Amino acid sequence: MPPVSLDSLNRASEADFIAALGDIFEHAPWVAAAAAEQRPFATLDALLQAMTRAVREVAADRQIELIAGHPDLAGKAARAGELTAASRAEQSSAGLDSLTDRQYDALHRLNAAYRAKFAMPFIVCVRRHTKESIIALCERRLNNTPALERVTALEEIFRIAALRLDERVTAPERLKVHGRLSTHVLDTQAGRPGQGIPVELAEIGEDERRHVARAVTNADGRTDRPLIEGRPLPIGRYELSFQVAAYFAAQQIRLAEPPFLDRIPIRFAIAEPEGHYHVPLLVTPWSYTTYRGS
Amino acid sequence: MPPVSLDSLNRASEADFIAALGDIFEHAPWVAAAAAEQRPFATLDALLQAMTRAVREVAADRQIELIAGHPDLAGKAARAGELTAASRAEQSSAGLDSLTDRQYDALHRLNAAYRAKFAMPFIVCVRRHTKESIIALCERRLNNTPALERVTALEEIFRIAALRLDERVTAPERLKVHGRLSTHVLDTQAGRPGQGIPVELAEIGEDERRHVARAVTNADGRTDRPLIEGRPLPIGRYELSFQVAAYFAAQQIRLAEPPFLDRIPIRFAIAEPEGHYHVPLLVTPWSYTTYRGS
Amino acid sequence: MPPVSLDSLNRASEADFIAALGDIFEHAPWVAAAAAEQRPFATLDALLQAMTRAVREVAADRQIELIAGHPDLAGKAARAGELTAASRAEQSSAGLDSLTDRQYDALHRLNAAYRAKFAMPFIVCVRRHTKESIIALCERRLNNTPALERVTALEEIFRIAALRLDERVTAPERLKVHGRLSTHVLDTQAGRPGQGIPVELAEIGEDERRHVARAVTNADGRTDRPLIEGRPLPIGRYELSFQVAAYFAAQQIRLAEPPFLDRIPIRFAIAEPEGHYHVPLLVTPWSYTTYRGS
Amino acid sequence: MPPVSLDSLNRASEADFIAALGDIFEHAPWVAAAAAEQRPFATLDALLQAMTRAVREVAADRQIELIAGHPDLAGKAARAGELTAASRAEQSSAGLDSLTDRQYDALHRLNAAYRAKFAMPFIVCVRRHTKESIIALCERRLNNTPALERVTALEEIFRIAALRLDERVTAPERLKVHGRLSTHVLDTQAGRPGQGIPVELAEIGEDERRHVARAVTNADGRTDRPLIEGRPLPIGRYELSFQVAAYFAAQQIRLAEPPFLDRIPIRFAIAEPEGHYHVPLLVTPWSYTTYRGS
Repeated sequence: MPPVSLDSLNRASEADFIAALGDIFEHAPWVAAAAAEQRPFATLDALLQAMTRAVREVAADRQIELIAGHPDLAGKAARAGELTAASRAEQSSAGLDSLTDRQYDALHRLNAAYRAKFAMPFIVCVRRHTKESIIALCERRLNNTPALERVTALEEIFRIAALRLDERVTAPERLKVHGRLSTHVLDTQAGRPGQGIPVELAEIGEDERRHVARAVTNADGRTDRPLIEGRPLPIGRYELSFQVAAYFAAQQIRLAEPPFLDRIPIRFAIAEPEGHYHVPLLVTPWSYTTYRGS
Repeated sequence: MPPVSLDSLNRASEADFIAALGDIFEHAPWVAAAAAEQRPFATLDALLQAMTRAVREVAADRQIELIAGHPDLAGKAARAGELTAASRAEQSSAGLDSLTDRQYDALHRLNAAYRAKFAMPFIVCVRRHTKESIIALCERRLNNTPALERVTALEEIFRIAALRLDERVTAPERLKVHGRLSTHVLDTQAGRPGQGIPVELAEIGEDERRHVARAVTNADGRTDRPLIEGRPLPIGRYELSFQVAAYFAAQQIRLAEPPFLDRIPIRFAIAEPEGHYHVPLLVTPWSYTTYRGS
Repeated sequence: MPPVSLDSLNRASEADFIAALGDIFEHAPWVAAAAAEQRPFATLDALLQAMTRAVREVAADRQIELIAGHPDLAGKAARAGELTAASRAEQSSAGLDSLTDRQYDALHRLNAAYRAKFAMPFIVCVRRHTKESIIALCERRLNNTPALERVTALEEIFRIAALRLDERVTAPERLKVHGRLSTHVLDTQAGRPGQGIPVELAEIGEDERRHVARAVTNADGRTDRPLIEGRPLPIGRYELSFQVAAYFAAQQIRLAEPPFLDRIPIRFAIAEPEGHYHVPLLVTPWSYTTYRGS
Repeated sequence: MPPVSLDSLNRASEADFIAALGDIFEHAPWVAAAAAEQRPFATLDALLQAMTRAVREVAADRQIELIAGHPDLAGKAARAGELTAASRAEQSSAGLDSLTDRQYDALHRLNAAYRAKFAMPFIVCVRRHTKESIIALCERRLNNTPALERVTALEEIFRIAALRLDERVTAPERLKVHGRLSTHVLDTQAGRPGQGIPVELAEIGEDERRHVARAVTNADGRTDRPLIEGRPLPIGRYELSFQVAAYFAAQQIRLAEPPFLDRIPIRFAIAEPEGHYHVPLLVTPWSYTTYRGS
């Protein structure tokens, strides 16, 4: 389905509006219907607020029904191919379609415990997470009270809705649902950007590494595009690594053999999916500095 | 065999002297015999110089015989249990008794090529090396001329002898055959040493990790003893890693969840086995710096 | 005189063109006249090139006349108020109208020696310099041969012309005659930009300090505008200073009394007037790092 | 008076003991007399404790008399040459004999206000201070209650006594009344200590600079002796400065002209007179890092 403009949605028939946005909330076209009546929306955020307000103001049993309509993570529906297209893409983005045995067992056990305690599926906006952070989050949320957990589930549903809306509807001002991860290499021995240095980003799980991005620094020491942009930064652990020995060797600098520094790994974690993480490297053949910059 | 003092060796009978030092040069007690005549030695280094001079001044065919008396690395003699005790301990120190299949194949192939080209065993002072650096060195030395390679083999034999001598003989001044690897953690957010931080050192091969040392930083931010001391630092790649998140959490500092920095890996290589490598960490919850210090 | 557009100059009468640009080269309207014939110019740089070519291709005596038409630096003409308006503004930009006694004596002595050796005034594009660097440059150029010095004087005249042209004529693409000096404060203890930190830039002479700029860092840790932009960065020594203690105190961080770091001075020199100097500060209450960045 | 050993004091006659230590407490030989009775002392600290206990346990009016027996700082007695030798040396160590007009006025005004409020002289152990910190301290202490100020004055008297005792009496274990200020230069471009770099330490007042120490870094990048040792570190502001451009030029490194970094000033304050301040410099021609180390 190609994106539609906010403008055309504002002018569409109610039926077309619901056809376009009926699945922003999983199996709950009534949310779109409620929003349709409040048109026109000046901004995409106003449309999102109208939809979330419709959910917040509806009776508790309808809310519970909405929650119950969501699939289990990596659950039976996923294996049976019965997910909605949106759910399938989302679960795959976090790698839930490629769980290790340990992860599968953990998630299965946690899902079951969650359902036993709360009588509803565990809902999380998976595009803001990695497999490891989903497992950690589920463990933490198992300690919540049912009342708090209902609120939490709705908040996650709103996050899912916001991301779906952001993809589906174009508008002059986009929703603030994306993060950005960037880097920069400064050669502090020569006092200039480190150009031509290969950079790799991987997601680090307990027992695996998942490739995320690869780039080479340009004349300004940056990558041509951020390593992650246009989507939330999944909460989790990462390793950024920089191949510096070949770069220094090409500057005619005499290095030790083997060179003191070659592949430099920077391990860090992302905790704010909508944040800007700038993780630069200040480097000489014998030293380096990194930090969360801006 | 317990160490003997230089003093008692100076006063020993020639037979006892040769009994004590006859195997410093592999299968070549004549080297000790030549040195015995030049006693007394004021220093251990003078004894070593007398022994190496005896080798340097002997006829070329005796030198070749000395070289030929050395076993292949990880070769048939090793597998047949036919190594001298000293050779066995040395080869095991570099991990030559636990080669991966790739390493075994590489070394086997290189050994064969070396013997084919030079008609002698490939000799290297393995205690100054890791498996990876031995393989890399053999590849490089295959490009040498036979004449240069004979000189190189003797130099390695002298290094082996120096280390054996250093272990076998006590003297007021020891031989300069050892290196030192130390670290230090400074908490630059609090302006004081980082105490109680777990530190681990591993040797990093292409397809394996070999544990080397583990320690916890003390009140001065250092480890109670250097991570490596009293032996050469094997040429190779290493990873030093520091667990900092628990340390900062214990200082009542609010960290992100998960913390931006948790296990900090520092990858570096050692190229000077007799050098002092000081690899400190200046760290806050959001930044760090490392360098080769002194 | 308000700037004129390149476009209108392309369409102007020859007389108007010369009226507008006749003083780009000091007392030498013939340069503008020569350029007028080659109109239209697609870019400002093409106009500059036409003017410099006219000078390069003219007979040597006309070149010498052009050089001779320039005033001495801080010389009699300046004191008598006989400078052209452009010369006066330029000399004042470098502080030549406020020399210390030592500087006055040095410049006077050097000017005299220069005139004695080369029989022409010492010409330098003063907007690319500080008083100290002018004195140092004159000392160095006194060692040149007369032939080299004539070439050098013309190059400086071209630089003066380029800056005058850049001010006088507007065009879609400006001449690359400006530099930029910027800074950035990262609070590496909190992992975020250092906001609200007073920053000062001063030019540092041997026996004086000259205020250049003052600013306060914004939410991104930067100053709202570069500390210097839109003009060449004068070659010379500078001090950037940051008031950090009040900033940290405001974050509820317990500081020592007096705080370990309060006003942090960064001394550095600028050597490339058309370059970009980015001089950031990574700072905690107990540490800092600075470097030439990009 | 040459130092005497604790041992000989333990064995001395009471008269000799008092003769030796009668002026440890200004104009109060009765303190030494009280301590004499409690001999022998196992450590110098035990002797100090006996003396301070004697003061703490004496009647309030004797304490006030002790306090009143101290001279004003930089006061009439000083100008009239009526200070005890110990007081004169102490006041001069802090530079109280070379006050600027502003400092003299401030101290005079504060002394008068202090005497007016508390009817006693303002007492401070000046060897732990700089002129600026004495003025700041007096301003702060003017806000105290008379009761607290009497306690504070006694504490300062005990500090004065401890320093006098440490100078006067030798013992196997010295009193912990000294601090240490050290530095270290690491050339992080070459991965080795920065040798031969001139280092200067100055005390920085509001309107003056006072030279403290000068040294050149040795082969380990350190100064042969700490910049300050064997005395308290006076509370105050300092500038450590390093001349690095000539060092890098001597390494055959091409520097900018003028070099980006030349004299590097590090401004910092000392707040713990008995602490160890290690203020190192990690430096390349284009970057540097400093911090409070250990």
